[in-house]
Amino acid sequence: MNFVKITEVGPRDGLQNEKAIVPTDAKFEFIQALAKTGLQHIEATSFVKKEWVPQMGDAEELTKLIFGGNPIDPEIQLSCLTPNIKGYEKAVSLGFKEVAVFTASSESFTKKNINKTIDESITAFLEIFQRAKEDNVKVRGYISTVIACPYEGKISPDKTLTVAKKLLDAGVYEISLGETIGVAVPSEVESLLNVLLKEIPSRLLAGHFHDTYGMAISNVKQSLNMGLRSFDSSAGGLGGCPYAKGASGNLATEDLVYFLEREGYHTGVDLDALVNASSLMEKALNRPLLSRTYVAKSKAKESS
Amino acid sequence: MNFVKITEVGPRDGLQNEKAIVPTDAKFEFIQALAKTGLQHIEATSFVKKEWVPQMGDAEELTKLIFGGNPIDPEIQLSCLTPNIKGYEKAVSLGFKEVAVFTASSESFTKKNINKTIDESITAFLEIFQRAKEDNVKVRGYISTVIACPYEGKISPDKTLTVAKKLLDAGVYEISLGETIGVAVPSEVESLLNVLLKEIPSRLLAGHFHDTYGMAISNVKQSLNMGLRSFDSSAGGLGGCPYAKGASGNLATEDLVYFLEREGYHTGVDLDALVNASSLMEKALNRPLLSRTYVAKSKAKESS
Repeated sequence: MNFVKITEVGPRDGLQNEKAIVPTDAKFEFIQALAKTGLQHIEATSFVKKEWVPQMGDAEELTKLIFGGNPIDPEIQLSCLTPNIKGYEKAVSLGFKEVAVFTASSESFTKKNINKTIDESITAFLEIFQRAKEDNVKVRGYISTVIACPYEGKISPDKTLTVAKKLLDAGVYEISLGETIGVAVPSEVESLLNVLLKEIPSRLLAGHFHDTYGMAISNVKQSLNMGLRSFDSSAGGLGGCPYAKGASGNLATEDLVYFLEREGYHTGVDLDALVNASSLMEKALNRPLLSRTYVAKSKAKESS
Repeated sequence: MNFVKITEVGPRDGLQNEKAIVPTDAKFEFIQALAKTGLQHIEATSFVKKEWVPQMGDAEELTKLIFGGNPIDPEIQLSCLTPNIKGYEKAVSLGFKEVAVFTASSESFTKKNINKTIDESITAFLEIFQRAKEDNVKVRGYISTVIACPYEGKISPDKTLTVAKKLLDAGVYEISLGETIGVAVPSEVESLLNVLLKEIPSRLLAGHFHDTYGMAISNVKQSLNMGLRSFDSSAGGLGGCPYAKGASGNLATEDLVYFLEREGYHTGVDLDALVNASSLMEKALNRPLLSRTYVAKSKAKESS
């Protein structure tokens, strides 16, 4: 009851939204360090076209390191984003046993992001779901803009419910509910979950909050109160916000772990080891990380 | 029921903890800007010895501007910190109708901070309370380290209850509960308030949270759930954390207003006007402010 699953998305969702392109070796070192923090779920990379997301252009090279001569502890579940069957095939052939697919609750967002309707995006994944079943590969489903969209504004919970049910029917083992632009407050999370939980068990849902306006932890608390026990976060708060450059994006794993452990939940994550892992990326990116807990722990260390 | 009182402490608690000393004119301009945001309660300065807190060394000069030829809207309740009767007399003679006094729940903290025991600190205020009654001046009471102390660690809620009752008996109209080092999580706020609210009505209590570990908003939400309707915050998150230089300190007023208004509470504060006021201090201090909402709003403005 008290264990909370954390999916670390820093190496993928975080680094994908950083301006600087981190060298593959530094990414591997980062993932190795994350793997020693107690984190059990790490999203490592994305098999997208290099022209679209140059930050993820080394997915194949990085994956070879991850499953290569000096592999990550096999107990740790590593995953990657696969936008199409070609990406899926490459990812699985190189060693991934879990992949993630990506759609949204907002038609405008899906159209702008992947030039498909929501239904077209799900149809495009059907081949992945089929193959994943045959290959015994787990598929996780991201739904973006579950509460608000940068183009459409407020999104009705019913839209997210419809998309979530389609993804679950198609075979995802968990839905990550992406509050992509970080504007939501707990009452909105409550409204959304009230609708979703009528038809979907809480164990199939994860919260993916952004901290753009500093609301992420209060939204996690709301979700916990309503039964969710799975959250995504990004080490150090890596990634920032694509809609307000320089602002905070993904909830920082440090802030999440601090909150959960202090509130009596169990994460299995060593906060000091996590701060050390994040510091590798602070150096690689040459910009200060924005996680409150990361900064407080780093500064306290500096002054001691 | 839905109105929440905000006490803006940026000009005092914020600037007091900044390294740079802001010129008096710039402080006055800042307070003028704050007074146009809809904020009704602004703590403007502190009448302490200049040698102790050089940042507040211009209290007299600033106060003369505030109540001078170009005064702040008299509807706005301006206050100042007065550590002793001498400071009180000066503050009131220059125009303040509200002052604040300061003690803590931790003996070690009080000893280190003002070289008194807690009881000695309250005794030292008795003359202020007596005079304030005669002068019809309101007195607000700060209690620091209500949940944890940088020297003693965890503080028992009973200690805070004892101090709060003494201050209320002495005549303060409101107690500001200072979570000075920003380590608390909602379950600890709940434990504290469960003890306090058995003997003290919620309308006499204000929450003063720090965001050092990113927990402030979730602590505000916990306090709201338990009936509190008064919170302190600092524009832009001014002040930082004296125990981890470079880390966040006071909850930012922008984050608080964003949260409250989006959650259906009423603050009367215009968020854009507030961002403008804070930007004056970002320039004066020549360092980026840390408020999540301030940054998101500023960056969104830059990109539009």
